[in-house]
This record gives sequence, structure tokens and C-alpha cells, in this order.
Amino acid sequence: MSTTNNVTGKIRQLRSLMDEQKWDAVVISGTDPHNSEYLPERWQQRKLISGFTGSYGTVVITKTHAGLWTDTRYFIQAAQELEDTEFTIHPLRVPGAVDYPQWLASEMQEDVVIGIDGSCMPYQEVEKLKKALAPIKGKVKDKTDFLTPLWPDRPPLPMNPVFILEEKYSGKEAHRKIEELRKKVHDAGCTHIVLNALDQIAWLFNIRSHDIPFNPVVISYALIGMEEATLFITPGKIGEKVEQSLAKQGIVTSPYGSLTNALQELPQEARVMTDGNTLSYSIFNQLVIHPGKENIHDFPSPVILEKAIKNQVEINGFRKAFLSDGVAMERFLFWLEKELEAGSLLTEKSVSKKLSWIRALSEEAMGDSFQSISAYGSNAALPHYNHGAEEGSLLEKKGLYLIDSGGQYLSGTTDITRTVPLGPLSPLEREDYTIALKGMMALSTAVFLSGTKGTHLDMLAREPLWKYYRNYGHGTGHGVGHFLCVHEGPQDIRMTWRDQDILPGMLTSNEPGLYREGSHGVRHENILLCQVLKENEFGEWLGFETMTLCHIDTSPLLIELLEDWEIKWLNNYNSHVFNTLSPLLTYEESLWLTQKTAPLPVP
Amino acid sequence: MSTTNNVTGKIRQLRSLMDEQKWDAVVISGTDPHNSEYLPERWQQRKLISGFTGSYGTVVITKTHAGLWTDTRYFIQAAQELEDTEFTIHPLRVPGAVDYPQWLASEMQEDVVIGIDGSCMPYQEVEKLKKALAPIKGKVKDKTDFLTPLWPDRPPLPMNPVFILEEKYSGKEAHRKIEELRKKVHDAGCTHIVLNALDQIAWLFNIRSHDIPFNPVVISYALIGMEEATLFITPGKIGEKVEQSLAKQGIVTSPYGSLTNALQELPQEARVMTDGNTLSYSIFNQLVIHPGKENIHDFPSPVILEKAIKNQVEINGFRKAFLSDGVAMERFLFWLEKELEAGSLLTEKSVSKKLSWIRALSEEAMGDSFQSISAYGSNAALPHYNHGAEEGSLLEKKGLYLIDSGGQYLSGTTDITRTVPLGPLSPLEREDYTIALKGMMALSTAVFLSGTKGTHLDMLAREPLWKYYRNYGHGTGHGVGHFLCVHEGPQDIRMTWRDQDILPGMLTSNEPGLYREGSHGVRHENILLCQVLKENEFGEWLGFETMTLCHIDTSPLLIELLEDWEIKWLNNYNSHVFNTLSPLLTYEESLWLTQKTAPLPVP
Repeated sequence: MSTTNNVTGKIRQLRSLMDEQKWDAVVISGTDPHNSEYLPERWQQRKLISGFTGSYGTVVITKTHAGLWTDTRYFIQAAQELEDTEFTIHPLRVPGAVDYPQWLASEMQEDVVIGIDGSCMPYQEVEKLKKALAPIKGKVKDKTDFLTPLWPDRPPLPMNPVFILEEKYSGKEAHRKIEELRKKVHDAGCTHIVLNALDQIAWLFNIRSHDIPFNPVVISYALIGMEEATLFITPGKIGEKVEQSLAKQGIVTSPYGSLTNALQELPQEARVMTDGNTLSYSIFNQLVIHPGKENIHDFPSPVILEKAIKNQVEINGFRKAFLSDGVAMERFLFWLEKELEAGSLLTEKSVSKKLSWIRALSEEAMGDSFQSISAYGSNAALPHYNHGAEEGSLLEKKGLYLIDSGGQYLSGTTDITRTVPLGPLSPLEREDYTIALKGMMALSTAVFLSGTKGTHLDMLAREPLWKYYRNYGHGTGHGVGHFLCVHEGPQDIRMTWRDQDILPGMLTSNEPGLYREGSHGVRHENILLCQVLKENEFGEWLGFETMTLCHIDTSPLLIELLEDWEIKWLNNYNSHVFNTLSPLLTYEESLWLTQKTAPLPVP
Repeated sequence: MSTTNNVTGKIRQLRSLMDEQKWDAVVISGTDPHNSEYLPERWQQRKLISGFTGSYGTVVITKTHAGLWTDTRYFIQAAQELEDTEFTIHPLRVPGAVDYPQWLASEMQEDVVIGIDGSCMPYQEVEKLKKALAPIKGKVKDKTDFLTPLWPDRPPLPMNPVFILEEKYSGKEAHRKIEELRKKVHDAGCTHIVLNALDQIAWLFNIRSHDIPFNPVVISYALIGMEEATLFITPGKIGEKVEQSLAKQGIVTSPYGSLTNALQELPQEARVMTDGNTLSYSIFNQLVIHPGKENIHDFPSPVILEKAIKNQVEINGFRKAFLSDGVAMERFLFWLEKELEAGSLLTEKSVSKKLSWIRALSEEAMGDSFQSISAYGSNAALPHYNHGAEEGSLLEKKGLYLIDSGGQYLSGTTDITRTVPLGPLSPLEREDYTIALKGMMALSTAVFLSGTKGTHLDMLAREPLWKYYRNYGHGTGHGVGHFLCVHEGPQDIRMTWRDQDILPGMLTSNEPGLYREGSHGVRHENILLCQVLKENEFGEWLGFETMTLCHIDTSPLLIELLEDWEIKWLNNYNSHVFNTLSPLLTYEESLWLTQKTAPLPVP
């Protein structure tokens, strides 16, 4: 049965179910009980009903309409994946966009009843929906796993073993992190905190697993009181040694499904801190014991910021990870050039697999940190291109090839993009390559006062491109986890305002790009570590150290577009890359890298 | 009687009054019924009680405490003016600042009663106070003009005549502006709008007067319905011709004090748009006829944005105003240099008066647009220095002199700062002069996409300074009115987020500076007009035209700190200034300007 028929069949089944339940519409979110960006198969409900595989989107099915709400990154992919189905794509993050709650409020009749799986939608998301529906007196009905009847072969919860991230990697024992968290919870007038975000739990308890592709997290909840700390996890995932190790840190375990009981058994006087932007609607509602929710302190989890500010052991670990990753990248780029020269048949997929394979050979390597974007020629014009299950395009000896990839290492997580020339380039390709690099260099060398936000810094990366009337439609930077998710908050670097300082110890990506539909795409991405530079009468001054180690190809550059300081920066960077990596490369690779990092003449 | 004794006496009288009224504290705001930044004498209540003359601050008097809340701009001035009084200064806009509502909430007992003059405090300001007092069950008592008994010689309302700003200056007749406003009011589901902000009323009705120093506004209210438009104004301020002219535009007049009656006579079904951030607490409360305030639409006035986007006639007018202003500035700078050479005795005050005098001779000149900041040497380290009634410092033949001034013209309002060398400079003075100028040039040449906010652009002006670990503690730019207030919203250019695009037709200042306590201060300020540069596949691109015409002295510059493009920009600017202004200068002035604008060698 083709996907199309499959989708049509599922929608038919779902509508029968809606009739049974007397629902006028259902909302199917793209997330799970842990508000994850990447999901285990068990919770890929949106994919089940629509076939859409992107990482962002919400499905709404009414009796007469099937809609997918997604953003610019996925317009093209969604159009392909939803072709020949009855799905309509509702674009988000474009002028005049109407999100699904507002759409429902305007399209549905009074007293509409909307079915949701409240275990897979954050509380605040559902509250927004309810607020939008208030004028038409709409009701939301929460039914956990309502799609299961349509899903006979629904996968079970992942059962990967959990391991402890040793202190030599984490830099701080779990009991110390828990103590510090308790203090924050107490200071906020609370007695307990409930955590459901997987990267927060993994960081806090220094545990890792492989429950979600690319993200070494553990499917679990955590409940922390002033005396006790409980990890709710499927029995069997934790061996005896890990159990003992956790116990030493004051952590007890309890079955994954027993969080609900634990919440109901909390003392009457308990006041629980939790993050309604992350905690599911179903569990949040189990917490409510007073109608005014006085027993709940709905607040961003303090773990988010703690986790983002890396300690010295983590920072040293990152240096090691970037060293391994740099060797892998250079080895890969060397291989790619030689294979092309030799006339080998290379596809986007085969090349990407080769890179994963090379990375996997590195010390402490734990797999890729996300699905590589391996994009040749016009495919690279899609910032989130995915060749899917196919081989993708064949690489030719001309134009630009873009590879955005990263690795997980016990000592850190990496994320790097390089755009490499495979042969002759068009003048526009060279211009875009040069101008996007100017943006990256401007942000790399930023000097800023304490208190500066990512929104301020974003401008520094864009202005060099804007001077040439060019822009990229995505953010400039995202936080990076420590052997955790490659995207993490709270900081980012983008035009949209976020009231979060860029702080010493944060790792953030720096990835300006330029995209030309039907022609080519360029992106240069390094990871930056924020550091204190100096202090004087004006305040504390911060700047960045570039952590990523992989040469930037100077051959596509239009030197006349570069300023002197940019040429110097580039020469310094490439020479630093060569000096650091060459001792770890083969003689042949090292010789090749000498040429690749040969300095440009300074005018 | 000295000011100190005066203040002590007033506080004693006020405390008696508080006893009579059974108030535990009073709040005395720094504004008037129109939320003005500059006030007529009649409403300078804060000055009466404290002697503080700054433009920003709130006084709180309790039975045991007298406090002034003000910000960084006025710390030094306030300390001087409040010396030997019982006043304590409470600093705002500093880390850990506690504003007066929070201070009252923490310092006062339960059931505290606070007296206010609600006719001189915006509704939202009082609501914030009430909210802060809620935990201690505090009450606010509104008593208009409660200070009058302490103020036997309280000045009356200004009685300056009103004149019409002709269409050749305004570019749009009042009836057209009113029609466009009616449409917006109607679209928001309202039947009426109440305006109390003086610059909004002056702009909407194309009327001007001299009711407030430097601000050519008319003390009045406006009530606009779908059919009628009423100007509430003291009878006698409007002559017969003006009355007729207004009538032609569909505007009727009514006595200033009769707004209250008019509001009470509104039909039951009226729904009134007003701006609770501007409208006084007293009048806002008169509007409330339902407890839920369903008859009020509390919303930023649509006039604010309309007024900020200048039409073509206004823009052409501005060009004329900047031409006149440039001639005045060059004439002044020439005079200053010659007088210094001749050994004349010059004080900050005498020099500033001379500039006002020269400006007043210009075509269509209508006075200064604000109190000039005329600051020599270390005085210039205070960004808002005011020599007060004294002569101020004597100018010497060394160091830097800063003059921040502006003019009102029928065709526009100007605001310019130049920092000029009076003789030998220290290396740090030259560095600061050069580096602050780099910030100004970076913003002047910005290229940005539609949708860019002032917060984004602010970074462009700061980064050149930050690269040298230097900063200024004020915003980079403010909107400028058209023959109206020199500070106007909604846009500004500063680090603090404001969700307002910089739009074509807006005029905004560009004024980076560097300040060294006890030594010197530098500021360079031009006015920028936002314009469309081009449109392409990435969007609509905007940039600035520098409107200000007055040479920038190149003699203090450290050329080695300048980039090639900066030298070119500066040469172009100075040559443009010379070519535009020299035909309007005397032969001698013109000869002098030739030297002053001689191009720097381009490396």
C-alpha cells in the first residue's frame, strides 16, 4: 500500500473515531510527553496520520479538512510528502500566518469539541488553544493515546540501557547539581520540582542512553523534593551498577508510569515548581489540586540555564571533542576530494554515510548528533535539505557541496557546516561564499558588554551580508548541549527578541548562509564559546573563542571583497587548524592540509 | 529664603496637609495632564516640592522620608540640587534599582493611604502603583491640584495664541488626517478617541503655539467621534481667523475644562479608544462607565505612528530646516573659533546664547528645540549637562567643547551635536573623538531589511566602540518631530527591546558618544531619514540619508584608527556640507569652511 493510500485510510479511521467520541476535530501535535524535538517512533503520531517527517508541525483534522501547520524550513518537504493526500499546508512564520488555534476558532462552529492527546502536548500550548476557542465556547477533550486503535503495530517504549556519564566528563556530580537545584526551588518558595524534558533530566542526573536517535537521552521523568530525588524510568533499563551509582547520589528509581501516583501522594502543603511550556497538559492537570493552581509555580526550569553554562571540565571536554571532530572532518574532506579526482560515483547519501563512518572511528565517539544535511548544488538552497531514504543527487566536479553534520562524544557534542567547491564555480557562487563568510567572521570577532542578548549579536552577522542586499531566512545561532541535544536553550542568536544574556561558558553556533533557489546554497558554521575578555570602567567585556577545528577553503573567495582584518583572521584560523590537527593526521592528509591552509596574501 | 529652606518649609506644609487628609504618603509625578516631558510652570509640582529641575523623576514624601526617583542622566544634577535638603535620591535604571511603587510596598504598613494628583499621572502609572500596593492593601486617593494651598503664586495656564500650520508645511490638511484616524478608530470597533498628548493634537489639527518652552504645542484635549472633532482649549487662545480655519476642517472648539462634561455626555453605546499610558488617571476614570471597562479600548494612540512617518512635504521642509540650521551652526562655529583666537572671554552660557541668537536669525526660525547642552572639558562628561542659571565654565584654548542644540523651524525641527577642539588635545581625547565617530558612521551607512527594529540597529553604532572596550550609557537615537517635540516615538535606537520597525519616512537621531568623568566628553549627532534603497528576492532594503548639514572637524582624528571607507564617507560628507552651505555663507565663512572640510588623504 502506498503512503498516500495509507494516509487516506488513516484519516478515514480517525474520522470514525471522532464520530464515536463526538469530536468535531482533533489536534495531533508533533511532540511527545517530554516536549522533545526528535521523537522515538512510539510517539510519531503526526507522521502516522500524515506521512510528514519534518521536525516541526501540527496536524488538525476536522470532518472536512486535513491541515498541517509548519514553517518555512519544511514548505518544500511537506509539499512533497503530502502530495496526493487531502492535506493542506498552512504556512507559519510568514506574514499573515494564521496558527491552528486561530484557524479553528474562525472555521469551527460554536460549542466545537476538539480531541487532543494531552499527554503529548505541553500545558501552555493547550491553554493557548483553549483561550483561542473561548469566544466560540469550544471545548478540549484530553484522551491519552487515542490514536492507538489506528496503530496496531505501534512501537513500544525504547528499552536502551542507561549509563552514567562519569564526573571526568560531567565535571559535577549529580548530588551537587541536585543540591543547587533544591536551593533554587526553595528560594522560589517551592518544595518540589517536576522535570519532564529529557535533556534536563540527563544533565541533572549525569545519565545517558540512546532512546532517541542522535540525542543520548533517557526516557524518564524526575521529581525532586528537598530530601528525595526520584527518577521515573521503565524497569530493566537500569542495571544494578547504575542503580547503585545513582543511589550514591541520593537518587532512587521508580517505574516510568508511576509519576502520576507520586504526584497524587505529595503532601497537601507541597508547592511544586514546573515548566508549563514543557510539562504535558495531562500531567500538569494532575498536579492541580486547587482551582487557582496556588500549589503550582509555573516557571521556566532553572536547569535550562544551569545546563547551558558549561563548567571547566565540560569546556575541556568540548576541546577534545572538537579535536576529534576536526580530524574526522579533515579526513572526510581529503577523502572526498581524492574520490572525486579518481572519478568515483558519489551520491549525497553515500558521502554522508562515509562521514558518519569516519566520525564513528574517533575516540569517545557516540554517533552523529543529528541527521547530516548532505546537499549538492541546488539542493543546498534548502537550509534543511534531506535526501530522505534515496541516494540523493550525484556529486559532480563543479559547483558547491554543503555538509552540515555533527558528532556525539562522551566529552561533548559538535555541529559544523562546511561548503566546499567540487570544481569550477559561478561568479555568484563565489560572491555568496565570500559574503556569507564575512558574516561568520564578524560574529566570531564580536566584542560585547555583559548584558548583551543574542538579538543584538545577530545583527553583526547579518550586516556584512545586508551591505550586499543579501540575507538568510534562519537564525544565526543556537545553543549546543554537552553530549546531549545539538539544539538547546535558553540562548540563541536571531532577530527575534529573547531576553537572555549571552553568558560566559555558553556554547552557541555561528552559521550565516546564503541560498539561491534552483542554483546553490552556502553556509559556514563554527561553534563559539563565550568568554570574559576584560573588565574596565565601562563594565565586563565578553567575546568568543572559536571551538570548531576544520579549515575554511579559501579557493572560492573573492579576495577583493575581503577587508584586511578578515584575511588576517582567516589566515590565523587556518594556520591554527593546521597546527592543531596535523599531528593527528596521516602524512598524506597533512600534506594536503598544508595546501588547503596556505595563507592568503595580506594586501 | 534659600532653596533649601524653601524645600524644608514646603515639605513641612505638605506633611500638615497629609495629616489633614489622613494620607500616609504622597506621590508627586514629574508630568502634567498631558504626560509632557517638558511642562509649563503651572504643573512643575515636583520642582516646587523638591527644587529638582531635571526632566525625569518622581517624588515620594512620607511622614519620615522624602525621596526622589530618577535615572542615571540626573544623578549628579539631583545630588547638587537636593543638597542640604532631607531628600534621598533613589537611582533608577541601575542594577538592583527599586522603583517607588515597590519601595512603598516594602516600606509602608498595611492599609497605607497614598495621596496623588491623578490629573497629572497617566492611568497605567497609577494602576502599576495600585498593583504594587495590593499585597499590603494600600489605597490611592486622587485629589486634583492638592498642592495648590502650598503654592500661593501658582502660575496660571499659558495663554499664548494658537496659529495654523499651513498645508505647505504640514503636507496634509487636518480634515484628511482626522478622516484617516476615524477609519482606524472605527476598525478597532470604537466610536470615539480621546487624545491628551499635546504633540499628537498639534499634529492632527495642524495647530501650533508656544505653551511649553521649546515645544510648539497647544495645551488642549481632543475628542474625535465619527462625525465631530472637538478641540478643548482655553477660550481666548484662538482668534477668529484660526477658529474659522479650524471650522473649515470640521473642528469645533470648546473650553479646556469642559472635556469632562463632554465625556459624560457621550452616548451609552459609545466605545472610546484612548491610551492609558498617556491619558491621566482622573480623566480615564471619568470614562469608565462599566466596571469591566468594556466601553474603553486602552490602546496606543494610532496618531503616534502616523505622526512619525513624515510625508513628502514634511521631508522637503526638513531639508530646508537642516539647510538653515547648518548655516547657523557653521556661522556659530566660525564665530567661536575667531572669538577664541581673539582672546575673548567666553563662557558655556554666553556661547550657547550666541548660538540661539544666530539660529533665531534663520528663515522661518521659531526658537530653540530644547535647552542647549553647552559643555566644556569635564562638564561634557555628563551627557545631559546643564550650566543652570550660572555662566558655567570658561572656555579655554585646549580640550574639547561639546554643543548639543537644535532649532524649531516652520518646516521642521533639528537636533545636532558637534564636539569641537579648542586647542591641543590629549591622546585619549583624540581616540575617543575618533572612536565615537566610527560608531556614528557605522549607523549612518547601515543597510537593513524591512522589519528591522531600533534594537538591531543600535548594535551597529556600538560595536565599533566596543571593539575598543568603550561604551556610552545612553540610547543611540530618538525620533524627531516635525516642528514639534525634538523627542518623539514610537521608534528609537537603543539596546532595550522595542517592537517597532524603523520605517521609511521616519527621522531618527544618531548620537554615539564617549564620556570620561573628570576629563572630557565626546558626542557626534546627526539626524537620519529612513528610506527605501531597493527591493530584491530577499525583501525590501532600507537605509538612511543623513539630513544634518554641518561639517565634522577632522583635525582631532587619529587617521590610523579609520578604515578606508570611513575616510571616504567623511570626505564625502564634508564635501557635501561645503557644496550645499557655502553659497549661503559669507566669503570669509566660506573660506574658513573650505579649510575645515579639506579632504583627508585616502590611503
